Amino acid sequence: MKNLDYQSASEIVIFGALGDLSRRKLLPALYQLEVCGLINEQSRIVGVARQEHTPKEFEAIVLENLQAFVKEALDEAVLTRFLARLVYQQLDFKNEQAYVNLANTLASGNKTRVYYFSTPPAIYGDICAGLNEAQLISDSDRVVMEKPIGHSLESSKVVNDKVAKYFKEQQTYRIDHYLGKETVLNLLVLRFANSLFTNNWDRNSIDHVQITVAESVGIEGRWGFYDEAGQMRDMVQNHLLQILSLLAMEPPADLSAQSVRDEKLKAVKALRPINKENIKEKTVRGQYSDGFLNGAPVPGYLNEEGANKDSTTETFVAIKAEIDNWRWKGVPFYLRTGKRMPAKHSEIVVHFKQQPHNIFKDSYSDLPANKLTIRLQPDEGVELQMMNKIPGIASQMHIQENKLDLSFSQTYKNERVIDAYERLMLEVLNGNQSLFVSRDEVEAAWTWADSIIDAWQSTNEAPKPYPAGSWGPVSSIALIARDDRQWVE
Amino acid sequence: MKNLDYQSASEIVIFGALGDLSRRKLLPALYQLEVCGLINEQSRIVGVARQEHTPKEFEAIVLENLQAFVKEALDEAVLTRFLARLVYQQLDFKNEQAYVNLANTLASGNKTRVYYFSTPPAIYGDICAGLNEAQLISDSDRVVMEKPIGHSLESSKVVNDKVAKYFKEQQTYRIDHYLGKETVLNLLVLRFANSLFTNNWDRNSIDHVQITVAESVGIEGRWGFYDEAGQMRDMVQNHLLQILSLLAMEPPADLSAQSVRDEKLKAVKALRPINKENIKEKTVRGQYSDGFLNGAPVPGYLNEEGANKDSTTETFVAIKAEIDNWRWKGVPFYLRTGKRMPAKHSEIVVHFKQQPHNIFKDSYSDLPANKLTIRLQPDEGVELQMMNKIPGIASQMHIQENKLDLSFSQTYKNERVIDAYERLMLEVLNGNQSLFVSRDEVEAAWTWADSIIDAWQSTNEAPKPYPAGSWGPVSSIALIARDDRQWVE
Repeated sequence: MKNLDYQSASEIVIFGALGDLSRRKLLPALYQLEVCGLINEQSRIVGVARQEHTPKEFEAIVLENLQAFVKEALDEAVLTRFLARLVYQQLDFKNEQAYVNLANTLASGNKTRVYYFSTPPAIYGDICAGLNEAQLISDSDRVVMEKPIGHSLESSKVVNDKVAKYFKEQQTYRIDHYLGKETVLNLLVLRFANSLFTNNWDRNSIDHVQITVAESVGIEGRWGFYDEAGQMRDMVQNHLLQILSLLAMEPPADLSAQSVRDEKLKAVKALRPINKENIKEKTVRGQYSDGFLNGAPVPGYLNEEGANKDSTTETFVAIKAEIDNWRWKGVPFYLRTGKRMPAKHSEIVVHFKQQPHNIFKDSYSDLPANKLTIRLQPDEGVELQMMNKIPGIASQMHIQENKLDLSFSQTYKNERVIDAYERLMLEVLNGNQSLFVSRDEVEAAWTWADSIIDAWQSTNEAPKPYPAGSWGPVSSIALIARDDRQWVE
Repeated sequence: MKNLDYQSASEIVIFGALGDLSRRKLLPALYQLEVCGLINEQSRIVGVARQEHTPKEFEAIVLENLQAFVKEALDEAVLTRFLARLVYQQLDFKNEQAYVNLANTLASGNKTRVYYFSTPPAIYGDICAGLNEAQLISDSDRVVMEKPIGHSLESSKVVNDKVAKYFKEQQTYRIDHYLGKETVLNLLVLRFANSLFTNNWDRNSIDHVQITVAESVGIEGRWGFYDEAGQMRDMVQNHLLQILSLLAMEPPADLSAQSVRDEKLKAVKALRPINKENIKEKTVRGQYSDGFLNGAPVPGYLNEEGANKDSTTETFVAIKAEIDNWRWKGVPFYLRTGKRMPAKHSEIVVHFKQQPHNIFKDSYSDLPANKLTIRLQPDEGVELQMMNKIPGIASQMHIQENKLDLSFSQTYKNERVIDAYERLMLEVLNGNQSLFVSRDEVEAAWTWADSIIDAWQSTNEAPKPYPAGSWGPVSSIALIARDDRQWVE
């Protein structure tokens, strides 16, 4: 058992405990923390939902979900410990009076209450009001909020305001699960534990950066929800900007939540606005049409089940983002994300500058630049592309690009892949906000994203079609080609 | 057949054609160039030696040596072409009159004569005088000199003066076979084709450099020769300083012989002198004593066959070399070479600076620095040591050193390993002096080495004993430990 002195005993209260996120991610994540001995012995897990269930029924549901969603065989002893922590509380979220029942369930005493809102954001306010009414909020309690937190700056403010009425910012943990991914966390180590990168992480050494998050899936039965949001709100405003801010931020003085979040915020705020003036030059919107994936035909977005045939929602976005500060002036960050692309494939590629002078021009007239690739999926790893002499006699200095490769799955064969929610849940329990998004950053991200969305709406242009199974519309290639660069593929 | 427009038709004249170097290295190297179609069709190979041989006898000797020293099966067609180039000329090197016979043998016309002196340096002068007497030297001819060119500044001048009387510096190719090694040549590509290294190749980014050339063999029956020379003259003055100069030189404007040799020379000249004042602090001399290698007992240097029991010749040298220029002020180059070490193992390790600030101090208080390792042998390759986050939940930022690895034997599985002499012979035929050592550099290297040797002699101290099979005397460890550093092992 690990030393958990730093982790207070908690009541982990999951609102929407029977929902999809809870069943697939939160309960399995808590189970894995139990395996690792990372939950305080005194802590309890309180499932809250609308339905009536006896404790035994709830336990059975949890067990069934662990069996379904934990990949490894369940350990009997661990399971016994874990199930013993479970408590179930039926609750009508909108009924303020009913929260008294929850108060009775929650232990009195000085346990930290961790409220995980795994419900639609529309009822975050009701839950807060109910908790308040039942005197269930103290300064040491924490609230965890799942995205989407609004679908615009304005609506995000409404959600945040409702919660902020009862919880201070230091108590509020806004989840973007990309911040829990191992390879995303490794960005911090790569950048700040390696002088070779720390010393070369600016406009003097870096030519441009590419961030690609490609999905091969379509909208997977979420047509109604997705059509309201689109790829910009669903992926760019949150996940891609989180990656961008970790890549672009100034080195924080330490890893404290305040230092890291301050620097991330500054980076997002320094994003050059994209609006009606420059929208065509800086962005591409796409929507997939009928096509082929892995040799099989797949329907276009407008032909998906339940589709509104007139939808102009984008399923693909490419953006040339620029950061107006000293470090990044003149270094574009090209973002690209879409559905129904040829493969599930996410990576960050840092393109260092080409050598200013080429003494190998006789054998290699256009010397490729060094590239650092951070693969997020499918095969997590780090790769550094370098030039080496090809062994051989035929030409004096025949040189070639080689990859220095670190594949995590190769290097850490015996390590279980940690799910982002395990990391984030642990951080909540430990009271560390570093990996959660501050309100200021959410709002800065929305400000930037809203301006783009508004500009798109004002042009009234339909998204450019691209066949399912392709890398997006042709104009995405043109976006980067205008700068004499190309997407890594 | 490659386009050989740039390579003039040559008479390749090997003096000492029946000697060890010629049989093991030069003839096999020329055969390999034949395989690759890299010898001008009109060129001939003229073997010169004291013994009388008929052409058929010489052909038989060459064939026998190719069978013994070329690893691959000989190709019949290539062999036929190669043997057809052979000519044999008996010659008493010291008899000036006899060179008329050589003149008769060498084709008149405008072929470039390439004279390869594979004989003891003591007779270089005689050969030159004889060639001159027979009017066999014109401005377009070339002379190739094998080391050792002297055993001190003074004696090297004698040898060089004798040759310089007849051949200009532009015609003179001084061999240091380390300059023909693939991995040594790759130093140029690593340094100048990768901005990540080019931009970090100085005192701002590099903490120190280690160059290790360890041999497991002893003196291999060369006791008489070796005891006169010692490791300083046999390895440091030439090979290790060649590596050092390629690592340390300023970026040359191009790969021309003049540019590269000028920059190398400047680096060697900037070496801080080591003399009586600082000899103890900057150097360690060692001599192996009885010990064990791979589990078997091996005799100490003084117990080798034919040994002079009173010899104080060093078989191990460690030096803290410093370069007094803008780029390298304060960056030591630690050199280390010895015989009877635990393994045949040569590598260059560039230690980048430690991060000035450590934001991971909670999990890793003494963050290791990045290291670039260039392995010369046994497994040629390049390795970059970096820090990464260890995947796993247990601690937030548990980080670890990982190697990004490029093994040449893995990457270039199907490539034959090119011998240094193939490369160097080709460069001679092509008339490119870049990979040969200029007289100025030889003399600068001797100046520095002589000062060290003189200082050792003046102290009259015997070399420190170290057991065969160890990494040298304890004081070698102390040499670097005084700077709070340690040898990579």
